[in-house]
Amino acid sequence: MSDIPAKMKAVVNHGPHDYRFEMVDTPVPGPNEVLIKVSACGICAGDIKCEAGAAMFWGENPWVKVPVIPGHEFFGNVVAMGPGAEQHFGVKMGDRILAEQILPCNKCRFCKSGQYWMCQPHDMYGYQSKIADGGMAEYMLFHPNSRIHHLPDSLSLEDCAAVEPMACSMHTAERADIQFEDVVVIAGAGTLGLGIVQAAKLKTPKLLIVLDTIDERLELAKKFGADLVINPMKEDAIKKVLDLTNGYGCDVYIEATGSPVGATQGLEMTRKLGRFVEMSVFGKEVTADWSIIGDRKELDIRGAHLGPYVYETVINLMERGLMTSKGIVTNKFDLEHWREGFDAAHSGKEIKVLLVPDLK
Amino acid sequence: MSDIPAKMKAVVNHGPHDYRFEMVDTPVPGPNEVLIKVSACGICAGDIKCEAGAAMFWGENPWVKVPVIPGHEFFGNVVAMGPGAEQHFGVKMGDRILAEQILPCNKCRFCKSGQYWMCQPHDMYGYQSKIADGGMAEYMLFHPNSRIHHLPDSLSLEDCAAVEPMACSMHTAERADIQFEDVVVIAGAGTLGLGIVQAAKLKTPKLLIVLDTIDERLELAKKFGADLVINPMKEDAIKKVLDLTNGYGCDVYIEATGSPVGATQGLEMTRKLGRFVEMSVFGKEVTADWSIIGDRKELDIRGAHLGPYVYETVINLMERGLMTSKGIVTNKFDLEHWREGFDAAHSGKEIKVLLVPDLK
Amino acid sequence: MSDIPAKMKAVVNHGPHDYRFEMVDTPVPGPNEVLIKVSACGICAGDIKCEAGAAMFWGENPWVKVPVIPGHEFFGNVVAMGPGAEQHFGVKMGDRILAEQILPCNKCRFCKSGQYWMCQPHDMYGYQSKIADGGMAEYMLFHPNSRIHHLPDSLSLEDCAAVEPMACSMHTAERADIQFEDVVVIAGAGTLGLGIVQAAKLKTPKLLIVLDTIDERLELAKKFGADLVINPMKEDAIKKVLDLTNGYGCDVYIEATGSPVGATQGLEMTRKLGRFVEMSVFGKEVTADWSIIGDRKELDIRGAHLGPYVYETVINLMERGLMTSKGIVTNKFDLEHWREGFDAAHSGKEIKVLLVPDLK
Amino acid sequence: MSDIPAKMKAVVNHGPHDYRFEMVDTPVPGPNEVLIKVSACGICAGDIKCEAGAAMFWGENPWVKVPVIPGHEFFGNVVAMGPGAEQHFGVKMGDRILAEQILPCNKCRFCKSGQYWMCQPHDMYGYQSKIADGGMAEYMLFHPNSRIHHLPDSLSLEDCAAVEPMACSMHTAERADIQFEDVVVIAGAGTLGLGIVQAAKLKTPKLLIVLDTIDERLELAKKFGADLVINPMKEDAIKKVLDLTNGYGCDVYIEATGSPVGATQGLEMTRKLGRFVEMSVFGKEVTADWSIIGDRKELDIRGAHLGPYVYETVINLMERGLMTSKGIVTNKFDLEHWREGFDAAHSGKEIKVLLVPDLK
Repeated sequence: MSDIPAKMKAVVNHGPHDYRFEMVDTPVPGPNEVLIKVSACGICAGDIKCEAGAAMFWGENPWVKVPVIPGHEFFGNVVAMGPGAEQHFGVKMGDRILAEQILPCNKCRFCKSGQYWMCQPHDMYGYQSKIADGGMAEYMLFHPNSRIHHLPDSLSLEDCAAVEPMACSMHTAERADIQFEDVVVIAGAGTLGLGIVQAAKLKTPKLLIVLDTIDERLELAKKFGADLVINPMKEDAIKKVLDLTNGYGCDVYIEATGSPVGATQGLEMTRKLGRFVEMSVFGKEVTADWSIIGDRKELDIRGAHLGPYVYETVINLMERGLMTSKGIVTNKFDLEHWREGFDAAHSGKEIKVLLVPDLK
Repeated sequence: MSDIPAKMKAVVNHGPHDYRFEMVDTPVPGPNEVLIKVSACGICAGDIKCEAGAAMFWGENPWVKVPVIPGHEFFGNVVAMGPGAEQHFGVKMGDRILAEQILPCNKCRFCKSGQYWMCQPHDMYGYQSKIADGGMAEYMLFHPNSRIHHLPDSLSLEDCAAVEPMACSMHTAERADIQFEDVVVIAGAGTLGLGIVQAAKLKTPKLLIVLDTIDERLELAKKFGADLVINPMKEDAIKKVLDLTNGYGCDVYIEATGSPVGATQGLEMTRKLGRFVEMSVFGKEVTADWSIIGDRKELDIRGAHLGPYVYETVINLMERGLMTSKGIVTNKFDLEHWREGFDAAHSGKEIKVLLVPDLK
Repeated sequence: MSDIPAKMKAVVNHGPHDYRFEMVDTPVPGPNEVLIKVSACGICAGDIKCEAGAAMFWGENPWVKVPVIPGHEFFGNVVAMGPGAEQHFGVKMGDRILAEQILPCNKCRFCKSGQYWMCQPHDMYGYQSKIADGGMAEYMLFHPNSRIHHLPDSLSLEDCAAVEPMACSMHTAERADIQFEDVVVIAGAGTLGLGIVQAAKLKTPKLLIVLDTIDERLELAKKFGADLVINPMKEDAIKKVLDLTNGYGCDVYIEATGSPVGATQGLEMTRKLGRFVEMSVFGKEVTADWSIIGDRKELDIRGAHLGPYVYETVINLMERGLMTSKGIVTNKFDLEHWREGFDAAHSGKEIKVLLVPDLK
Repeated sequence: MSDIPAKMKAVVNHGPHDYRFEMVDTPVPGPNEVLIKVSACGICAGDIKCEAGAAMFWGENPWVKVPVIPGHEFFGNVVAMGPGAEQHFGVKMGDRILAEQILPCNKCRFCKSGQYWMCQPHDMYGYQSKIADGGMAEYMLFHPNSRIHHLPDSLSLEDCAAVEPMACSMHTAERADIQFEDVVVIAGAGTLGLGIVQAAKLKTPKLLIVLDTIDERLELAKKFGADLVINPMKEDAIKKVLDLTNGYGCDVYIEATGSPVGATQGLEMTRKLGRFVEMSVFGKEVTADWSIIGDRKELDIRGAHLGPYVYETVINLMERGLMTSKGIVTNKFDLEHWREGFDAAHSGKEIKVLLVPDLK
């Protein structure tokens, strides 16, 4: 550990609109803890919303505890281990690893029954000071309750950084329980939506339709396997889906837009007894006719959050060339230029932007 | 058939706010059709909303076809049969029977795969002129695609008339997939809610909680097995349910209020990974934070409509004394006094009101 | 109908070991019936077992009613229709169609609830004289309760004849509920096993392993997507699967051998809480330690029979080039040479053998 | 801890046919460990089979590690705690508790995904020397990975000792997924079967039928809610069940006999598409026609093992008087008379026999 500096570069969240590039103390691993040198950390829409002061992060009893290093789409190599960590995690010095975003308490009813991703206290890397500092720094500590996964050398830096969002996409696709005979609509072709497209395609649905208002993203969706793409700014998406399905509507609708119209159009275009998967974080409330859910269509609306039990699957599919970050990771910045990174990610011109401490 | 009069008493829907008591031609059964003498027909909230001109019945391309005899909670005895009907339905003259509310087309994708209750064209007794006239009359025709069930003599008139709504309640309860360890909240203790309470109790949940704003209905819910009742006008229902569950929330929430707050409070008081069953017809749109569905709680929201495959079950449970209409059917009127019946049903003072052609 | 001859060529089952090539009366379609000119009819293992006198066909109250024309893997073009058939089935003269093997009664509890493929009386084309004569003839009658599907012109004769067995394969694969993280073992690479391989591959399991004792079939399995093949005559299949899975065993085991060892080795090589799909017809009883099912592994053993609701899916996947009979259909004979066809099918050297009335 | 003697009474398993009453060292709790004073410990059929040398316990690489104190149906009060145990388990001195039979490794794929009851190494209290000594002793150690549950004072000694087998019964009943319309057959009315009867009744099936060859047990089954009982030594059980179900067979069959005929008769009397739950440990292999599973009936055969996630439920139902050991626990012996206890349990005259260290 002699070559680990006492101070490290980091982005630090001091509150809404108050993120700063700083030199902070490099953390030191305690019992059953691991220190990694961060290779890259993606910027999530959640990071941008948190920085912008969204209510879900900064209510009166805020879930975010500052000062905290943000970032939950990280990976890196093991550079130090506390006592017992090697055996506890099954890792060795130099291993290329990541930890899942959630840091389970291991004590609540969900943790005790294998549903760790819905852990009641719900600490997540990048949001709780000291307890769960994130990956927008040169080094990062993995705490004892972390769920750690190994990353093979064959994966690119971009793929490794994309494992976390792709795991969320994968879980969302799995919640849809896609069958061969299904007409599947995926609304929203951002990072997560494009991951869902890839995962859904691997289930061979009858027809895979992708909706987005940005044509470049629709082109990418086609590359990832969409049979048909619709830009709702240019076409009547509901009518088109109904026409394609003899008026019944799609069997599966996956909402990944985060926009109220993404929800309401889904209720309209999904067939009776269909499945509607909701994975978005919404900036606004959704006003909708809930009679559709029960009386008119007897729908199954299934929420999706995080990527439980699918990290190994995503890594394996990436190794086999069946999932990829290519085309999704569109830009990189170093820690000093985190602000440019956030702005780029927010602009809509980029899809996934990474912060890379050692960017050359 | 000699004693069947050519004309019969009926309530006839000529349009919103235009229901009339009339003498109309008694229908004559054709091939595979059965004529019953109606014993009773319940007044559903849907009947009242239709009479009042609700949009879901009277849109620009109205699903209701007038003039039509309303009423879908009917039963009676076979008094005439068209050619083939005896064998087609397995019924005999005098049999006490009912038909399910839905009259399936037998041709759409749902009918062809056993999901007849979500039949795409969705004709329902009481709403389509000639094709599906309802039970608010002295006689009523059961068409060839009807799903007919026999009613044992041991059941009271009130129980027989309540089979249809109890079947809807039963289906809703089944959608909740209630387990022994579940804390179940049923919101709304009208006819359907009280039927859900009865069905839910028979699954022996850990705790059965019922919410309603009318104390008399809560008392009835207790009789039907509620362990705890809450009047949200008097107590903070969300807080109480959270307190009872160590802050987690209920495992199952069944929404039977038809009121937007019934939906939003359910999203608040249901635990992560919980089940939320929606069976209401809403008069207004629901404005809610859909981030709760996916990101915050990963819920399963399950719609429920009608009572597929459960009529025999309800009849059997009524025979065994495990389900009942006692306390739910609170008043009866004859056809001539249908208006008083509708008003009584609408008042909130009654729960279920029946129209009985031969009321003495 | 003027060019339909009064007599036609047919294979006729008069009893065990008594199948004959004969000229019989060409059937005439009655109300809601359709006559097709048969293009081809596959020979199934069931046909061979029936001819050989297997007990399941010829018990003391035999399910097979002779004299009957065998064959349930048929298709052809509409050449005549009885009154009402055009509308009843939605078919036109000349349409290329098939009927599912099962001829549902539409009256039993299974038919009434959408589970038509497990119809209690269970008449199947090719087994009940007059009621359900099969496709080993020049012409064949589709009865009113038939489930009919259209075949696009783009499909080869071989593909069309293979739709029925591929539908059984598809249903079997669907019963396995294959997930991305699954190691799947398919035991048996005959016609049905090879169809299962194709269907399973389209779900993208982690690893797809195929077992058979004939190396040529294993080669074919590889072409259809098997990642690994094992010949249990040459290698210890159980040990190999356990080694590949860190000693846990496979997640999914699909038994398509029809041999007792296919069942017992599956119980050994499947992991705890794994899924075991059983679709075979066995010639002998299976002797096994049932403690494995509950106490030792808590398995899910799921039977599979026929191809409910998947014919359209198979046809669609064939059109898209994602399923195929290529390599599976290995030989054809005309009706006169049915005996050579049966012998070839039984020999193990062929996989699927067709009877083609107009073979040139 | 001053009043805990250095030596304690215990039954010790030294090998097949070599169980001995001995004075052994009282264990001392280490970090995160708890010592209880044993109140009672039931004798399970597994204990008797192990003593008798059954192959599943004593194969060439035996799962049982001797010398070991047997017994896995134990409970008692906390009398000593190692460092950290109070917080680790949330227990206090004097608490009345039990530990589940399984001692999960917390490291295998099953433990890591919430499926702890199928833990791959599968250490169980009463079978592995030092690691997992059981409850047939005055004191017993609960190791750090134990799953501990509190027992309210209101429960009788007999109920507390019966929680473990009742949890197995409950899990078995839950695997059957009993619905209101189900005809349920439970074969075997020993301790576990009678627990299943109680659990099944609380789901309100249409008809609950119990089979056993001992009439006294059938009488007890009736008390616990069986609608109908059949002694297959006196009646043709298969015929009777088919007659009761219009020839279809039962919807659910639960095999709790451990006898091959219990399995084969279940395959015969279960309807097509029915559920068959297997929870027995068999002394012999089962020879059966597996064509029934797939081709003839498309069954779901579901194994059941242990009582995952249901201990709290059983305790709660016992508190509410909805489950009970009354009539099931029929005799008690002290540790010195363990042999008489085993013989009594084996005789068939008793149902559940307890060993009670402090028996007066």
